[in-house]
Amino acid sequence: MSCRRISEKALLGAGVRIGEHTTVHDHVVLGDGVTIGDYCQIGSEAHGEDADFVLEIGAGSTVRSHTVIYSGSRFGAGLQTGHHALIRDNTRAGLSLRIGSYTDVEGECVFGDYVSCHGYVHVGKGSRIGDFVWLYSLVTLTNDPLPPSFLERPVTLEDGVVVCVGCILMPGTRMRTGSYATAGTLVKGDVAAGAIVSGRDSAVVGHVSHLFDLETMTRHPWMRHYADRYPEEARDRIRRLGERIQASRAAFPNG
Amino acid sequence: MSCRRISEKALLGAGVRIGEHTTVHDHVVLGDGVTIGDYCQIGSEAHGEDADFVLEIGAGSTVRSHTVIYSGSRFGAGLQTGHHALIRDNTRAGLSLRIGSYTDVEGECVFGDYVSCHGYVHVGKGSRIGDFVWLYSLVTLTNDPLPPSFLERPVTLEDGVVVCVGCILMPGTRMRTGSYATAGTLVKGDVAAGAIVSGRDSAVVGHVSHLFDLETMTRHPWMRHYADRYPEEARDRIRRLGERIQASRAAFPNG
Amino acid sequence: MSCRRISEKALLGAGVRIGEHTTVHDHVVLGDGVTIGDYCQIGSEAHGEDADFVLEIGAGSTVRSHTVIYSGSRFGAGLQTGHHALIRDNTRAGLSLRIGSYTDVEGECVFGDYVSCHGYVHVGKGSRIGDFVWLYSLVTLTNDPLPPSFLERPVTLEDGVVVCVGCILMPGTRMRTGSYATAGTLVKGDVAAGAIVSGRDSAVVGHVSHLFDLETMTRHPWMRHYADRYPEEARDRIRRLGERIQASRAAFPNG
Repeated sequence: MSCRRISEKALLGAGVRIGEHTTVHDHVVLGDGVTIGDYCQIGSEAHGEDADFVLEIGAGSTVRSHTVIYSGSRFGAGLQTGHHALIRDNTRAGLSLRIGSYTDVEGECVFGDYVSCHGYVHVGKGSRIGDFVWLYSLVTLTNDPLPPSFLERPVTLEDGVVVCVGCILMPGTRMRTGSYATAGTLVKGDVAAGAIVSGRDSAVVGHVSHLFDLETMTRHPWMRHYADRYPEEARDRIRRLGERIQASRAAFPNG
Repeated sequence: MSCRRISEKALLGAGVRIGEHTTVHDHVVLGDGVTIGDYCQIGSEAHGEDADFVLEIGAGSTVRSHTVIYSGSRFGAGLQTGHHALIRDNTRAGLSLRIGSYTDVEGECVFGDYVSCHGYVHVGKGSRIGDFVWLYSLVTLTNDPLPPSFLERPVTLEDGVVVCVGCILMPGTRMRTGSYATAGTLVKGDVAAGAIVSGRDSAVVGHVSHLFDLETMTRHPWMRHYADRYPEEARDRIRRLGERIQASRAAFPNG
Repeated sequence: MSCRRISEKALLGAGVRIGEHTTVHDHVVLGDGVTIGDYCQIGSEAHGEDADFVLEIGAGSTVRSHTVIYSGSRFGAGLQTGHHALIRDNTRAGLSLRIGSYTDVEGECVFGDYVSCHGYVHVGKGSRIGDFVWLYSLVTLTNDPLPPSFLERPVTLEDGVVVCVGCILMPGTRMRTGSYATAGTLVKGDVAAGAIVSGRDSAVVGHVSHLFDLETMTRHPWMRHYADRYPEEARDRIRRLGERIQASRAAFPNG
């Protein structure tokens, strides 16, 4: 006996699998080979009967159990969510977005291709995130510069940015291409391309190419040693992004 | 076919809506117009058959999906929870409590009216929270001064307190009326009315009326510019609270 | 009407209780008196048909609602999880592991006996944790020394370690017997037995026996005043562990 419920107004591609106790609401479009886990709400909280207010999830995506995705978002192929994830409305995402367990995307956000968020990440409303960005556990993107207020200054993260575990990104922060925040940083202002920022004052402490692992002599930017984690078709873009980040080194002391 | 389960011992007001796969247990009283989402446990884990051990949720409340609320709490009208919230037993809350997604209220807590908690907030056992308090993401109210121990020194937050994202409130902390903790502060001790505290040493760095947004010239305390977010009937209370906080400015340098 | 689903290949001990809307998959072995809450996935995501890839949960365990436990782990008697917990594959745990609500154990981890994790704890892949360890809310055990990379340097926590709320444990950290991290510490390197570390630089600020509560004159290590929280059969081990930690005091100034 099954408790899954799939709206007759949903469009399901070939080979779609829907978990137990999961509900797929109206105006949901699932690409070929999409897998939805158990206890999920897909396309919930539709605002009105607007047929344009569609939730599209691209081919080959996997949504893990207890995840809630609101109506009115579009995800490219290869979306992956962890368990207990939450994605509100009007999100636009490119290819292969990865959203960790307990991660909350608050609506009106834009993600490029191949963005990876670990668990407990909070992506504040209206955030703009480029391609190949990494957000580690507990990273929070705020957007209110004077809480509480009606003001909104979302965070912008350009291509190749890495934000390590436990960082808070203050309202209006812009991290430029390939910049890097170390664990527990309160990031603020306009962070230069390739800069490493650290600490409660978001101080620039070097260029990302200065980061390396002594034991294995692995050296950042990560595009040098981690491109194999991505599919073949992404690697040329990764190589070129790595070159742009490497070039930003010239602006740094001891560059 | 529905998998919802509603106890015959629960009392449901007019227009109550219960989501799919949700269980409403014994001794639950839901006011008129309450909406409960999917995959919720409402009134679970009742300790014994005590008929006084009631869970009451006031009129017009909304409990979002995957939320667990234990028996033995009372919430005024207009409770709102996000998704995946957790509220343990013996909580008492006034009007319009808002509990964000993944937020955990640990039991024996008291909330005044119009308290707003964002996501991933942990409200330690026995916390005392006044009216119009704001707790942002990842704020943690501790209560054990020598972990682990049998000691309990819960946190007290008076009316109009604002605690920004990622703060840890140390055991026994009291934040007085309208005081304000900036992002990532380790708050401790007795924080004076209207004081701003910041950093790992919980240093007082000014009065809340010194906080403003340069671009829009919006100025705190928030009661000056954010009262419209609340219903009409709350605004006179908000105005008077704002005046009390403003008056606390006299005690500060450059007051 | 029930929506629970229990595989015929699962082995259930005497007095096992399975919640509503819960699925128990193949190759799951539940000891006597195990209680599983609602909306749980027990033994999900089995990798292949390997009959050795078993999930064993020991006698007297309680798994609370909305919890996901993957295949291929072994838990001793008395496991307790909070709500919305997540435990991935190949975890090995001794007696009475406690996993708080929203806590995520990432796989390949080893826990000794009587480990307690509060909520929102992230135990990175491959972590090694001894006996009688305490991890408070939001504690994160990382494992990648150069994120993102293919490198893995998991964290090791020896017996009796206490990690207070909001700490980040950097890759490769080893905390030796009975060492203690205060709230919000970025812990790194090799922390000596009994040492207290604090702050963003993980500075040693004393020995754990220097920690006491002035009001009640309760003094750490906690084995002196908190052993009663554990069952009778554990207390002799706790007493001996406390003596070892106390002995480490000799190496400290003002020891």
